Amino acid sequence: MKKERTKDKLRIIPLGGLEQIGMNITAVEYGDSIVVIDCGMAFPEDDMLGIDFVIPDVTYLQENYSKVKGFVITHGHEDHIGAIPYVFQKLNVPIYATRLTMTLIEKKLEEHQMLDSVRRKVVKYGQAVSLGEFRVEFIRTNHSIQDAAALAVYSPAGIVVHTGDFKVDYTPVYGDAIDLQRFAEIGKKGVLALLCDSTNAERPGFTMSEKTVGATFDRIFAEHANSRLVIATFASNVDRVQQIINSARKYGRKVCLDGRSMINVIGTAVELGYIDDSGGTLVEMDDLKNYPPEQTVLVTTGSQGESMASLSRMAANIHKKVTIMPGDVIVFSSHPIPGNEKAVSNVINELSDIGAQVIFQDTHVSGHACQEDIKLIYTLVHPKYAIPVHGERRQLHAQARLAASLGIPDDSILLLHSGDVAELSDEEARIIGKVQTGQILVDGLGVGDVGNIVIRDRQHLAEDGIIVVVLTLEKYSNSLLAGPDLVSRGFVYVRESVDLMEEAEAVVSEAVNDCLGRHVSDWSRIKLEIRQSLSDFVWRRTQRRPMILPIIMEA
Amino acid sequence: MKKERTKDKLRIIPLGGLEQIGMNITAVEYGDSIVVIDCGMAFPEDDMLGIDFVIPDVTYLQENYSKVKGFVITHGHEDHIGAIPYVFQKLNVPIYATRLTMTLIEKKLEEHQMLDSVRRKVVKYGQAVSLGEFRVEFIRTNHSIQDAAALAVYSPAGIVVHTGDFKVDYTPVYGDAIDLQRFAEIGKKGVLALLCDSTNAERPGFTMSEKTVGATFDRIFAEHANSRLVIATFASNVDRVQQIINSARKYGRKVCLDGRSMINVIGTAVELGYIDDSGGTLVEMDDLKNYPPEQTVLVTTGSQGESMASLSRMAANIHKKVTIMPGDVIVFSSHPIPGNEKAVSNVINELSDIGAQVIFQDTHVSGHACQEDIKLIYTLVHPKYAIPVHGERRQLHAQARLAASLGIPDDSILLLHSGDVAELSDEEARIIGKVQTGQILVDGLGVGDVGNIVIRDRQHLAEDGIIVVVLTLEKYSNSLLAGPDLVSRGFVYVRESVDLMEEAEAVVSEAVNDCLGRHVSDWSRIKLEIRQSLSDFVWRRTQRRPMILPIIMEA
Repeated sequence: MKKERTKDKLRIIPLGGLEQIGMNITAVEYGDSIVVIDCGMAFPEDDMLGIDFVIPDVTYLQENYSKVKGFVITHGHEDHIGAIPYVFQKLNVPIYATRLTMTLIEKKLEEHQMLDSVRRKVVKYGQAVSLGEFRVEFIRTNHSIQDAAALAVYSPAGIVVHTGDFKVDYTPVYGDAIDLQRFAEIGKKGVLALLCDSTNAERPGFTMSEKTVGATFDRIFAEHANSRLVIATFASNVDRVQQIINSARKYGRKVCLDGRSMINVIGTAVELGYIDDSGGTLVEMDDLKNYPPEQTVLVTTGSQGESMASLSRMAANIHKKVTIMPGDVIVFSSHPIPGNEKAVSNVINELSDIGAQVIFQDTHVSGHACQEDIKLIYTLVHPKYAIPVHGERRQLHAQARLAASLGIPDDSILLLHSGDVAELSDEEARIIGKVQTGQILVDGLGVGDVGNIVIRDRQHLAEDGIIVVVLTLEKYSNSLLAGPDLVSRGFVYVRESVDLMEEAEAVVSEAVNDCLGRHVSDWSRIKLEIRQSLSDFVWRRTQRRPMILPIIMEA
Repeated sequence: MKKERTKDKLRIIPLGGLEQIGMNITAVEYGDSIVVIDCGMAFPEDDMLGIDFVIPDVTYLQENYSKVKGFVITHGHEDHIGAIPYVFQKLNVPIYATRLTMTLIEKKLEEHQMLDSVRRKVVKYGQAVSLGEFRVEFIRTNHSIQDAAALAVYSPAGIVVHTGDFKVDYTPVYGDAIDLQRFAEIGKKGVLALLCDSTNAERPGFTMSEKTVGATFDRIFAEHANSRLVIATFASNVDRVQQIINSARKYGRKVCLDGRSMINVIGTAVELGYIDDSGGTLVEMDDLKNYPPEQTVLVTTGSQGESMASLSRMAANIHKKVTIMPGDVIVFSSHPIPGNEKAVSNVINELSDIGAQVIFQDTHVSGHACQEDIKLIYTLVHPKYAIPVHGERRQLHAQARLAASLGIPDDSILLLHSGDVAELSDEEARIIGKVQTGQILVDGLGVGDVGNIVIRDRQHLAEDGIIVVVLTLEKYSNSLLAGPDLVSRGFVYVRESVDLMEEAEAVVSEAVNDCLGRHVSDWSRIKLEIRQSLSDFVWRRTQRRPMILPIIMEA
C-alpha cells in the first residue's frame, strides 16, 4: 500500500528564522503530511519603528491546513514559542512539547484565553509521536532553559534531525547531559538531513559548561561578603538562577526575585521542581527588610538594558522598592544581544555614578554550541545533507563552511531562505520552488495592520517631523474660505522659528493663490503644488525634509 | 609683581566629554587666562531622532571671552576638532595644533568659508606656546592618527598634564614612540593634575602595537593570493592604510581608495608625507580595470556599517563602480563602535550571501591605552590629583579605581561632570560650582533649533504616527462649516482599516457636536475634547497612542 508513496519526496520549508535571530518555524512535508517545528516570534529590527514584535506569515500552512498534523516544539524560548497564540488563531492542530516547554506555552495560551481550544500533549525525552506519515522523536539536549529537545523526524523518505537551540554540556546544572549516544545511534541508521543551530557557528572552540558560571558566582559571593549583591540575568535562564540560589545558600544569603517575567518563569520552575530551593533560600520582596543587605541577593530582569525592566528602574532610581546604594555590587550575568549594547552601557553608567561596582567578567556562558560542538554533532549524526538553521546569514554561512570542512560536498549543503521549498531524496537535494512567507508586524492589538507604508511614514516623521497645511475652499466657487494655515510637529521649535514659519506660510499662500488664480480645481494638483513649493523652501532654508501633509476642506 | 596672583587657584572646567564618547572640550583657567583643550563634536544618541551631530554649549567661554587666550588641540579626530567651525562663529581666538591636526582643522574651516578669519599656529612636539598666564607644551603620543599630542599646561599654580587620546606603541608605524621620557621629566618637576584618556580603562592588560595588524595583513595577503581583497577601516586611520600599502607592495597588488572621507584624509596624508607610497602602489579607481582582481586591494569606508558608506553600498549592490563577487575576501579592520553592532552585522550578512568571505579576527587594535598603559602614565607623571576624562561614566569610574589602586587618595580623585568647576591647589581639590553646559543639536543647517520638545514629538511620531483632525467653524456663529475630517500618517494602513477610521471620525464628530451643542466657544476646550475622545477610542481599539493634532480653522 505504501509503495505508491515511494515516489514522494521529503520537503523542508522554513517559514522563518533564516534571515534573523528569532521567528523560528519550519515545515517538514511528505505526501499528505506536514509537521511544523517551532513557532517563534522575533524582536523588531531598529527601523521597524513602534513595532512590538514580529510573527511569521503562515499562509502556506493555512493553504495546506488539512495536511498539517501538528506542531512539535524544541524548547520554551520566545523565539520558538512566541507566535503560537497568533498562529493558532488561524490553525488549530495539536502541539507536542516537553514538560517545561508545554507549561510555558500554556501560560501564553492562557493569556490569550485559548487554553481550552488548543490540543496539547506533553512528550518525554526518548518518546516518539506519530503525525501522519511522520514519527517525531524528542532527544535530550542542553540549552539555557531546561527540557530542550532535538527532534528526529522519521519519514518514508529518510530521517531528518533538527537540533533546536542546543549546547553540549557534560556537567549541566539540572538533569543529564545531551543524549549524544542517541544522536550517534540515529546517525548509524543513516540521516538524510541535519538542521543544526548556527547561532555560534562563527565562534571557534567549545562552549563552556553552565557550571563554570556557578564557580564564578562562588568567587563573587566570597569576595563581596560585605556588600549587597544584585544579579541581572534572563528570566528564562532557570539554571542560572539555581546556581545563584546554590551560592547564596553556601554563603548564607537570602535570594529575592524581581521583575515580572523573572517571578513568572522562576515561579513556574519552582512549582514544577526544576529549581531546588529545599534550603528555603528564596524570600519575598517584603521579607527582605528582615535581613541585613549583605545577607541578600536580588535577582532581577534588565540584563539587556530594557528601559522598563527592574534593573534599569533601579539604576534610574525609579524602582518602587529597591534603592541602589554606594558599595552595592551589580553582576550582569549575560552578554548584550547585538543591538542592546548601548542600552546596557547606559545602565552601567548610571549604576557607576551611584557608586555601585559593576561586574560582568566570566559571569555568563552561551546556551549555544560553538564550532567544535557543531562538528561533534555533525560527526555523530553524519547527515547526507546539511541545512544550517537559526541565525543571521553570516552565521548560516559559517556553519556551511564548517560542514564543508567536514567533507560534506558543496551541493549537499543547502543555504535556504525562508520560503524556499527544499526537496530531498537519496539522489539529490534541490530548491524546487518558493512559498509565501514574511514578517507580520504586531503593534499593540494590531496584527498585520502596520506594513511598509506605515513604517516608512514613521521613519519619515521620526527624521524631520511633519508640517500640516490646511485650507478650506468654498464648494461651488472654489474660492478660499480659510487658511492656508501651517501647523508643524517635530520640525523646529516654533517659538524660536517664528520668522521661518511665517515665510513658509507666505510661500504656501502664494502657491495656493497662484493655483486658484489659474482656476485649478483639481485638488490633487493644488496639494502637489503646496507640497513642492513648501518642500523646496524648507530644504533651502534648513536642509530638512519634513513630511508635508496638505489637507483641503470643502465648505 | 606676580606675587598678588599667588592667591589665584587653578580651575579645570570640562564643558563636555564626561558623559559620553565625544564632544571633548575642557577649559583650564587661572586668573584672567583661559586655555581651551580640544573642541569636538559627538554623534547623536539613538533617541535623538533625525539629529546629525551634537556640539557643546560654550556659553561660559562667550561670557569670559576676554580671558580666552586660545584653543590647543590634541589631535585631528572629529570628537576633538569637529565643533570648531560652529564654536568659532561665537569665539575667535587662535588655534594651536600639530601639523596634520591643523591641516584637518583647515579643511573644516575651508568648508565653512572660515579659513581666512581664524588665526592658526602649527606647533611641533616639544614646543611650547605662551597663552596668557599659561605655557602649553605639546608632547608626542601614539594614537590611531599621527601627530597626536598630550599637553602639559604650565601655570603659576602648577602643571596640568592632559593626555589627549593616546596609546603606548613602542613600535609605531609612523614616527617615534610616545615621549615617555618627557612625561617622566615633567612628573619629576611635580604635576598638580593628570587628565587621562579613559576610553579603555575597563580593559585589562596592554594595548597591542599597530604593527601587529600589519603582520595579520601579511598573513591574509599570503593566504588569499587568488582573491580580490576589500579592506574596510576608519578613514582617519592613516597608519592602517600605510600597512595595507606595505603588504600590497610586498605581495604585488595595487591599492585603490574608495569613499569620500577615505580619499580626503588619506590624500591629505600622502600630500603631507605621512604616507609613504614611494612604490607607486596607490592607483585611481578608473585605472583598476588594468589589473586582474587578485592583484588589487580596495580600501574603503563603511567599517561601521554606515548605510551610505562605500562598503555598505557594495554589499547592497548599489555601488556605482564596484561589484562584490563570490570569492572576494572582505576584511573589517575595525571594531564596531558600541551602537553600530547591528549595522555592521547587516553588512556582513549581505556580503556573506553574495558569497564573499568576511574576515575580522586580529585585523584591528585599539588606539587607546588599556589599564596597564594607563598605570604607566600615572606612574611616570605621578600627579597629585587624578581627573579621568574621555569616556562614558563607567569608564571614568574604572580609571578612578585604577588611580586608587596606585595609591592616590580618594579625595584626590575627581570624577567631574561637564560644567563642574574644579578648583585645585596644593592643599586641596574641590568642586566649587557649576557653569552652563549642554548638548546643542545640529540637524541639517539648523544649530540648536531642535530641542527637547521637537525631539519628544519626533519620538512620539516615530512610535505610533499621527492623526490630524481638521474642522472649519463659521466665525460669528461658531457653527460647523466643514469637517471634522481625519487624516492619519504612520498609524495604520488606512485602506485596510476603513472601519476603524470611520468609527474614529464618528467619535470625533460626536465630541465636536456635543461641544457646539453646549455652545462651547473656547477652541482649546474643543481641541481638548477631540483629543481625549479620539485618544480613548484609539487606545481601546488598538492599544496605540498616536499623536492627535486637532486643527480648527475659522471662515
